[in-house]
Amino acid sequence: MNDCIFCRIARGEIPAHKLMEDGLTLSFLDINPVNPGHALVITKNHYAALTDIPPDEMRALAEHLQRLACAVSTATGAEGYNIILNNGVCAGQVVPHAHFHVIPRTSSDGYRLGWRQGKYGQGEAEAICRKIRDNF
Amino acid sequence: MNDCIFCRIARGEIPAHKLMEDGLTLSFLDINPVNPGHALVITKNHYAALTDIPPDEMRALAEHLQRLACAVSTATGAEGYNIILNNGVCAGQVVPHAHFHVIPRTSSDGYRLGWRQGKYGQGEAEAICRKIRDNF
Repeated sequence: MNDCIFCRIARGEIPAHKLMEDGLTLSFLDINPVNPGHALVITKNHYAALTDIPPDEMRALAEHLQRLACAVSTATGAEGYNIILNNGVCAGQVVPHAHFHVIPRTSSDGYRLGWRQGKYGQGEAEAICRKIRDNF
Repeated sequence: MNDCIFCRIARGEIPAHKLMEDGLTLSFLDINPVNPGHALVITKNHYAALTDIPPDEMRALAEHLQRLACAVSTATGAEGYNIILNNGVCAGQVVPHAHFHVIPRTSSDGYRLGWRQGKYGQGEAEAICRKIRDNF
């Protein structure tokens, strides 16, 4: 897409700290890192949602994601990492071009991913389970 | 692994609300959902870290992840979703068997993923960029 910021980075029209690229995918540093070394990986072609990515590009993206997580961890000396993909404005997606975040973590970094743990009432899990199965 | 809870679910030794499975991968409901329909997808073989998963199983996992995100969204009527993989205790990984969370989201669900935005000082981004590149 002409005006998508990630497409423009992929085309080399605006600068970014690029990490690795192949024919289908590209990784680069997030300019507002949760922790130093926080990186993004995208397909070069524009897809707003993860579920829009065709099989061959998804395979390349998944392989790149693994290699990126490894490289970021080693380079930063992280003890772990979070991989996050936000899909949709309500989920925190800012750039509408599907992207995985790789966020290197240490136990002393002071960052807390929000988490809450709900409970299913009687029969609720069974009902939602059936509904999801029916939509595969 | 004999005592891994996700391996035991995969082997059918303990109950779970299974959603879809093929020869290599399995998805099921998280028993403590952030939102109803919150699901997990794993490889049936045990790997603690995403980066340990071999290529053929990673491809199957990525394809399953896409299909799961689609099915969860449709079934729950979500406006979006978060995909999260926590690697390492410091990153919030509770079960040491690599797993992607798919968390369906709506703008009114009251859930906030923690996020903070840092800044790189002069030359810092360039230095970490070089280090990551060297580790690919």
